Amino acid sequence: MSEIIAAYLIHGEKHNPEKKAEEIALGLTVGSWTHLPDLEKQQLAKHKGRVVSVESIPAAEERNETASILKIAYPTVNFSPDLPAILTTVFGKLSLDGKIKLIDLQFSNELKSFFPGPRFGIKGLREKLNVYDRPLLMSIFKGVLGKHMDFLTLQLREQALGGIDLVKDDEILFENSLTPFEARITEGKKVLRQVYEETGHRTLYAVNLTGRSFDLKDKARKASSLGADLLLFNVFSYGLDVLQALREDDEIGLPIMAHPAVSGALSASSVYGISYHLLLGKLLRYAGADLSLFPSPYGSVALEKTQALSIGSALTEEDFCKRTFPVPSAGIHPGLVPLLFEDFGIDSVINAGGGVHGHPDGARGGGLAFRQAIDLTLKGVSLADAPSNFAELKRAIDLWGYKEVAVKNG
Amino acid sequence: MSEIIAAYLIHGEKHNPEKKAEEIALGLTVGSWTHLPDLEKQQLAKHKGRVVSVESIPAAEERNETASILKIAYPTVNFSPDLPAILTTVFGKLSLDGKIKLIDLQFSNELKSFFPGPRFGIKGLREKLNVYDRPLLMSIFKGVLGKHMDFLTLQLREQALGGIDLVKDDEILFENSLTPFEARITEGKKVLRQVYEETGHRTLYAVNLTGRSFDLKDKARKASSLGADLLLFNVFSYGLDVLQALREDDEIGLPIMAHPAVSGALSASSVYGISYHLLLGKLLRYAGADLSLFPSPYGSVALEKTQALSIGSALTEEDFCKRTFPVPSAGIHPGLVPLLFEDFGIDSVINAGGGVHGHPDGARGGGLAFRQAIDLTLKGVSLADAPSNFAELKRAIDLWGYKEVAVKNG
Repeated sequence: MSEIIAAYLIHGEKHNPEKKAEEIALGLTVGSWTHLPDLEKQQLAKHKGRVVSVESIPAAEERNETASILKIAYPTVNFSPDLPAILTTVFGKLSLDGKIKLIDLQFSNELKSFFPGPRFGIKGLREKLNVYDRPLLMSIFKGVLGKHMDFLTLQLREQALGGIDLVKDDEILFENSLTPFEARITEGKKVLRQVYEETGHRTLYAVNLTGRSFDLKDKARKASSLGADLLLFNVFSYGLDVLQALREDDEIGLPIMAHPAVSGALSASSVYGISYHLLLGKLLRYAGADLSLFPSPYGSVALEKTQALSIGSALTEEDFCKRTFPVPSAGIHPGLVPLLFEDFGIDSVINAGGGVHGHPDGARGGGLAFRQAIDLTLKGVSLADAPSNFAELKRAIDLWGYKEVAVKNG
Repeated sequence: MSEIIAAYLIHGEKHNPEKKAEEIALGLTVGSWTHLPDLEKQQLAKHKGRVVSVESIPAAEERNETASILKIAYPTVNFSPDLPAILTTVFGKLSLDGKIKLIDLQFSNELKSFFPGPRFGIKGLREKLNVYDRPLLMSIFKGVLGKHMDFLTLQLREQALGGIDLVKDDEILFENSLTPFEARITEGKKVLRQVYEETGHRTLYAVNLTGRSFDLKDKARKASSLGADLLLFNVFSYGLDVLQALREDDEIGLPIMAHPAVSGALSASSVYGISYHLLLGKLLRYAGADLSLFPSPYGSVALEKTQALSIGSALTEEDFCKRTFPVPSAGIHPGLVPLLFEDFGIDSVINAGGGVHGHPDGARGGGLAFRQAIDLTLKGVSLADAPSNFAELKRAIDLWGYKEVAVKNG
């Protein structure tokens, strides 16, 4: 029988986790069991939830709490194979039931077959860029609200000249008369083609797909027909299933960059909600995001390092589908490149806003500084030993410092 | 200039709330301000966020914390008039930024004009039922997973015979071969017509609208053409904007009952996320829910009373659109009817699962017991003084007890 296994963290001063687990397994499936007639038990057996395990967490006892991890298996026959049905089953009513957090979901192979995963993934995006041996470098438009198209295209050009691989729209840039969606795509494309002709460097631009849910497919198809490179999408202000539908539409056929906007509302609490690992990791990947942005462990808007790394693993570990690029974001400057390599490896995207635009030589200088830091780190050279012609990196280090990372032996 | 004003609760041991408020107001709009040239300030003035107020919460000081309520105004020119854009603007990146909770949103009148509110609302639903002078009575199918259509229709009949006004699907009942969506509508309709012919009592049935997001409109139109009474919808496993689109579609044209499944993941924490008041109250109403279910303050899955009442107010207070029926749910039995009157008034729905089905005389008896309790309470008679022919109520009280409520004078 195919199942989905949900793992929950529960907190409570004096709860009985075994009893709670049984209540969940029955309450969210057949309702009751013990007193049912045998015939009904036979009929309902394939629908009945099952307690897989109940583990107490000793660390919580020090704080005079009890905390446990419950794993409950739900037969997949109980729901349609879509994320709204899955979430409603495993964390619908239950999300309202006291101190409980959904920390993981383990899909059966049968259930996985209903999910697309990324259309391009890490490999496909590398092919688009023809870059295989280093992390990608990404930056973000800054201060574009209320600005004209010239401002945007100039900023885009500077970033591209800095050797940046991916430039994303500001996620708070919506449809507007100064820099409309379609014009951003076509004007952006011109600028990036020009830079490519001048330098041989290819930059891709992720345009923010916004508006009403039921208009998104048409808008994304239009973007595709205009030659857009990627779509930026604020998944959590819509819904994971909308992302999946955009991914599945062959007439769109574009890579999708998932932005974590609003996800903190679901995941920031350690006691309630849905773990970042599951939300920004596994579910975004299964639903089809090619890139997943999440708070890095380094900035002022930071995730705990274990959480950030765990998102990274969920996006890239062996699974049924393609891998999603992890994009740890916020607080990134060139001096952190060795640390980013250590924490997220080569198959990740180094993404900076202020760390690119705040460079003394502007966005172009910022981009170059990052590329220089990446080159050195790939060669195993400390940023402290940057050669004299890496002027942009030196200036970045003067401004923001750098983090030495012990070289691993073997 | 049209604005939306967001209210946030922030916690921190030693933060500077005024500084934080300024950072938010700029960071989520024009990015920076002080050092901009005058010309740019002129250009950007209409896009700049504004700190409305910063209030510290003295009660938090007792716990050695600082807590404040910040109100920030965002110009509506910055975003398109849809909920995904609004949520991304006011609580996108910010949701990831430490101990911050979005507790309210105040829409300008101009912005309100883009939202539909309920199609029917309290008044429209009362007209459908021809019931004007009492709370509506609702109940929930129980234990229907894995059961055949006969089981469902029998349960529906019993509930209708008990004088129940609204019966809702179990929210975890998805598309399935035993009780398919369309058959539930047509078979349900037959049963309810029969009861109406026998008794003159009209019951409406809310069928669970489920499946992939982009299929929902067609499915809902089909439901409408088959004569469905209402749609039950797990809004928070999809998205508020999807609800709004279903509401706005004239070919659907059905009342929508919003289920709070998954909303606990967004709202249960007192420190993070989005308040229940806003989510299950104002936003559901603006987006177009005709009924909003939320945890009652009485059961085991309970909200604090102030929170539950605040949802109720948001659904029913004077505003630009129709009023949404508050449906406080869970832990409701007939003995709580006087308390429900006191807390939620006549313009609410009394909703029970176990309190109907667990009655010694079955769902019919449970329904009758509730209707008897409602009759007495309307007349100002204590449930303790139930007349002898209110046998079902007496049995309910024997089983579950009752809550005496002081009669208000004047």
